[in-house]
Amino acid sequence: MMTLQPSRLAMVPFVSVADMMRLVHHIGLEQMLVALADEIEADFHRWPEFDKTPRVASHSEVGVIELMPTSDGETYGFKYVNGHPKNAHEGLQTVTAFGLLADVATGYPLLLSEMTLLTALRTAASSAMAARHLAPKGARVMALIGNGAQSEFQALAFKAVCGITEVRLYDIDPAATAKCAANLAGSGLTVTACNSAEAAMEGAQIITTCTADKRNATILTDNMVGAGVHLNAIGGDCPGKTELAPAILHRAEIFVEYPDQTRIEGEIQQLAPDHPVTELWEVITGSKAGRKSAAQLTLFDGVGFAIEDFSALRYVLGQLKGSGFYQDLDMVADPDDPRDLFGMLMRAQ
Amino acid sequence: MMTLQPSRLAMVPFVSVADMMRLVHHIGLEQMLVALADEIEADFHRWPEFDKTPRVASHSEVGVIELMPTSDGETYGFKYVNGHPKNAHEGLQTVTAFGLLADVATGYPLLLSEMTLLTALRTAASSAMAARHLAPKGARVMALIGNGAQSEFQALAFKAVCGITEVRLYDIDPAATAKCAANLAGSGLTVTACNSAEAAMEGAQIITTCTADKRNATILTDNMVGAGVHLNAIGGDCPGKTELAPAILHRAEIFVEYPDQTRIEGEIQQLAPDHPVTELWEVITGSKAGRKSAAQLTLFDGVGFAIEDFSALRYVLGQLKGSGFYQDLDMVADPDDPRDLFGMLMRAQ
Repeated sequence: MMTLQPSRLAMVPFVSVADMMRLVHHIGLEQMLVALADEIEADFHRWPEFDKTPRVASHSEVGVIELMPTSDGETYGFKYVNGHPKNAHEGLQTVTAFGLLADVATGYPLLLSEMTLLTALRTAASSAMAARHLAPKGARVMALIGNGAQSEFQALAFKAVCGITEVRLYDIDPAATAKCAANLAGSGLTVTACNSAEAAMEGAQIITTCTADKRNATILTDNMVGAGVHLNAIGGDCPGKTELAPAILHRAEIFVEYPDQTRIEGEIQQLAPDHPVTELWEVITGSKAGRKSAAQLTLFDGVGFAIEDFSALRYVLGQLKGSGFYQDLDMVADPDDPRDLFGMLMRAQ
Repeated sequence: MMTLQPSRLAMVPFVSVADMMRLVHHIGLEQMLVALADEIEADFHRWPEFDKTPRVASHSEVGVIELMPTSDGETYGFKYVNGHPKNAHEGLQTVTAFGLLADVATGYPLLLSEMTLLTALRTAASSAMAARHLAPKGARVMALIGNGAQSEFQALAFKAVCGITEVRLYDIDPAATAKCAANLAGSGLTVTACNSAEAAMEGAQIITTCTADKRNATILTDNMVGAGVHLNAIGGDCPGKTELAPAILHRAEIFVEYPDQTRIEGEIQQLAPDHPVTELWEVITGSKAGRKSAAQLTLFDGVGFAIEDFSALRYVLGQLKGSGFYQDLDMVADPDDPRDLFGMLMRAQ
């Protein structure tokens, strides 16, 4: 006797925004950032095992909608993500996202999850993971240029993963800086609000840029950036959107996630297509050097890559078992006889 | 005062499998097939307005997982779909799918829906819509070769959209034919189970092939197919998976959805890359001829294209208002201040 009750096979665990927030607090935000950095690093360590492709982007006048798929041959994952800088002026998120994991052997979904929050977490964790290999030893002070939705996550990831103790904030909008400073009060970080990018960079060994305007904006000019610092450039992440003066790029040793994508979307879209860059995964496996000297200027030109989302989703899936932080969605039709989809539909009448 | 309660902006209507079945029965299956054929035809009529790209496929030894995006500049849509022929032997669906519509202006999702059932409906509706332009006038008998999960939907779509009154069934597995015949009893169609493909084609003006094996199988040889019929070849839909002998293709006038994709996935993967084909949308706008004579052999080499899914999702979204056939999902983080994602997370503690 068939009923409308879907079978177990038809069910896909879904992590809503509210559930993701509960999960983060259950694990602890800093603990989760450290765990994500480790998961992402582990997947960068086995980089050649993944199917990689530049994200599939649909551009419009006002923004972009992207699909970011990858697979390690066992599990498939993709993220849907938009980027609409003008949204912020309309009371909407600049970036919203959700993602899915599926079983390569059957094609059946394993997890559907919100990824607006999870992307914020994995972006910060990826930056901090890269800095673990590239920042000068003993770095304790980070300048944070751009104090929007990603800024606090960057601050806490660098605290938890890299041992940063002080962040120096600057944004063209003082209200954004005030918001960021208020959110970081009580975090254990020394927080200093600054009136200029130059002031924010005083004494900083790490400079993080995470501004959101969709245009080629020069947030940092060449004379502003001294020797020996690590640049963590996050805001340049689509064609026509960059933050750094080309002269900085020519001085820096540049590290990227996936060159095919970064040359389209990252700071290096300003450079010749054959400008030498180092793939971060090669640093992590030890086949290429990271920072070579204290005086070197290193740049992580982070645009976000599908494997980081894959790592984050797999981490979340691993945390769900036995937890209440998800609901089952009846997403997959599962007739008793797989060839009898029509019969399932008719019997539901 | 902020609460854990998500705002309206954070909510995305989700149509589960159970809700899709309720919606289909509420509308009426044949009525919905006719409506979908009309929606799809309307979008083929404005074909140049759409962003088109071959689907993004991740192949494995046992199957494929694909993302199929498109956009008309106002609404963006994509479908996730797998194809795992061996699933059927493991009690699983060969094809499962879900899809999403989003607002191009904001990137915010508008609808998440199961698409295992909806794909079955839109595939049948697309076939029947194509046949409306290509089948011989007065066609009343259809051979249905391959009696799996798609077969009954094809039969009913051709009844409702094209006026077919008799279907003649054949499958290498008699149990599949028996299942299909039982499901179509009471449909108003005359249903004849046959012992061979040749027998099934006797007197048929339309021949539909929808077999599921992932290999180059010759379901129809050249001598089996007479003049004047319309071939609706649905089963050849990925590299290495075809159903028709090349000699049939050389005799036929071939109509396709999107040549860039069909040359990779359709029957015409067996032909030279410059073999002439007609795009169906050009027939629908009247700029190219469909069937030119009663004796002509026409072939719709259907592989399924993203715009058909887009049409189907938009139709479903249009039917939802005021209905109970969906639930709201808290998929999109929506902080009061869009730059304050972190604050939203902290206040949820």
